[in-house]
Amino acid sequence: MSTLELIHAAYTRIKPVVRQTPLLSSPFLDEIAGRKLLVKSECLQHTGSFKFRGAYSALSGMEEASRKKGVIAYSSGNHAQGIALAAKMHGTSSVIIMPADAPRSKIDNTRALGAEVVLYDRASEDRDEIGARLSAERGLTLVRPFDEPLVIAGQASVGLEIAAQCDVAEGDVLIPCGGGGLTSGVALALSEARPGLRVRPVEPEEFDDATRSLVSGNREVNERRDGSICDAIITPRVGEITFPLMQKYCGSGLVVTEEEALRAMAHAFTRLKIVIEPGGAVALAAALFHGEKLNGDTVIVVASGGNVDAEMFTRALNHG
Amino acid sequence: MSTLELIHAAYTRIKPVVRQTPLLSSPFLDEIAGRKLLVKSECLQHTGSFKFRGAYSALSGMEEASRKKGVIAYSSGNHAQGIALAAKMHGTSSVIIMPADAPRSKIDNTRALGAEVVLYDRASEDRDEIGARLSAERGLTLVRPFDEPLVIAGQASVGLEIAAQCDVAEGDVLIPCGGGGLTSGVALALSEARPGLRVRPVEPEEFDDATRSLVSGNREVNERRDGSICDAIITPRVGEITFPLMQKYCGSGLVVTEEEALRAMAHAFTRLKIVIEPGGAVALAAALFHGEKLNGDTVIVVASGGNVDAEMFTRALNHG
Repeated sequence: MSTLELIHAAYTRIKPVVRQTPLLSSPFLDEIAGRKLLVKSECLQHTGSFKFRGAYSALSGMEEASRKKGVIAYSSGNHAQGIALAAKMHGTSSVIIMPADAPRSKIDNTRALGAEVVLYDRASEDRDEIGARLSAERGLTLVRPFDEPLVIAGQASVGLEIAAQCDVAEGDVLIPCGGGGLTSGVALALSEARPGLRVRPVEPEEFDDATRSLVSGNREVNERRDGSICDAIITPRVGEITFPLMQKYCGSGLVVTEEEALRAMAHAFTRLKIVIEPGGAVALAAALFHGEKLNGDTVIVVASGGNVDAEMFTRALNHG
Repeated sequence: MSTLELIHAAYTRIKPVVRQTPLLSSPFLDEIAGRKLLVKSECLQHTGSFKFRGAYSALSGMEEASRKKGVIAYSSGNHAQGIALAAKMHGTSSVIIMPADAPRSKIDNTRALGAEVVLYDRASEDRDEIGARLSAERGLTLVRPFDEPLVIAGQASVGLEIAAQCDVAEGDVLIPCGGGGLTSGVALALSEARPGLRVRPVEPEEFDDATRSLVSGNREVNERRDGSICDAIITPRVGEITFPLMQKYCGSGLVVTEEEALRAMAHAFTRLKIVIEPGGAVALAAALFHGEKLNGDTVIVVASGGNVDAEMFTRALNHG
């Protein structure tokens, strides 16, 4: 199958179960952005982020024999919950390897969705070693969070839905970017469905590896690995599979501050009535506060996730 | 036209402009509720509440000559914003009469949506007198918030969408109830579209006029008129037009505490990633915390609005 055929096949599998999340807008946000602003609200997706799309695509696209034996994933966040629910819906088991210091609520949620959570100590244990051992012992299939064609094809459905939900012909589509699964998937989908739209990755300051990589042509690495409130989109660097797709289909990256992400969360609360997590709000922040770097009368942003605790959300509201 | 024809005619007019709001769910909420729980998320509607539906229905259903002269409404909240936006979209003017002590943000929002806001002093001025004078001087048409057939027909579209979005055949549909426009409209729509579903109004303690009225058979009056955090659904009593419809089509009412409404808001934040205001959360509260009073394997609730300020929302998160 060609890459585009992979995307359409994935959408056929996942369409009956994913939520077609709404494309929200507000005249008040249009005014701040200086143009029409449309927000694809993936925080309203099952498990609170777009990750469910890729996870369900991977589970439904695997061979039956492999699926039956179960899947394994590494994640401290949204991918974990997506895989757990997708596995449960397929009547199979999932093992999620999480750092022991991951937020309690994320561990509990992943367990509650039916996954077996294996905790490891970041300081003394090797995550990959634990994963390799469990995979070998039980015949589990590893589902990578972004460098996996079936996952990218699943995330691409966000792009197909955007094209179906609006008739915007030209302009920028801003996407919170971690490993690049969502960014490359949407870019690929839109290259066919709406070639006048240009996907651009958005990242927080100091974690702008994708932006720098698109400039240099190499997969640049972030100096820091943690300490960002935008934890959902912090990866050491973009993927081996995702980066060439981004090079081919994406425009230049955009960078926002953590402060701007928090302010964007507050605006989404006040004007759209949705809950976005810091990492999921960076694209909205770019549209609201960096309009001078955008083109077109309309900007489309993806609000990629909403898994934020009350304390952080309250902090964002105080920035509103 | 029959009442049902009015409903379908209204939906034909408003369908191109209203958001078909999603029917959200979470396995975590199902577990608390003890049954499948579906949340019709009208907080995601334009202007942040279902009121836009009735307002647009009224504006689009008026005679052209009247509409051109403009409309007038009394409201301190969601109806005001619905009317302001609907009037703007029809290229006509709106006058909203609001108490001078209404929250600043609601006054500002209503003005920003294009309405002329006329403030009055609750203590010394008569709202109806001001309204009558302005109507006479300018030929404005009064659009009542609930006792108006075109408005009820517009709110009924929430029921038509619920029937289209799920195949639940039997069970309770819980609706935050103020004057009864949404409650009676949805009940009427479902009586035809899904007669096995039973609409039941939900109110906060001490403001349970609809619940008591359905028991007594008379339009009972609340002793208190204000002081509830559920301000969006506080009315002296249900309407003259809405009450007979509720008597004919609704099941018994349910009553929740303010504390339960706040806890429901916190659950909606954590599990659905939506922002609900206290008055809009009472039906969800009943489903989560009064399951013993419900029937069926599935309960459907309407989250009717999300216009809440950061301070109140933070208070709700502290109840989570």
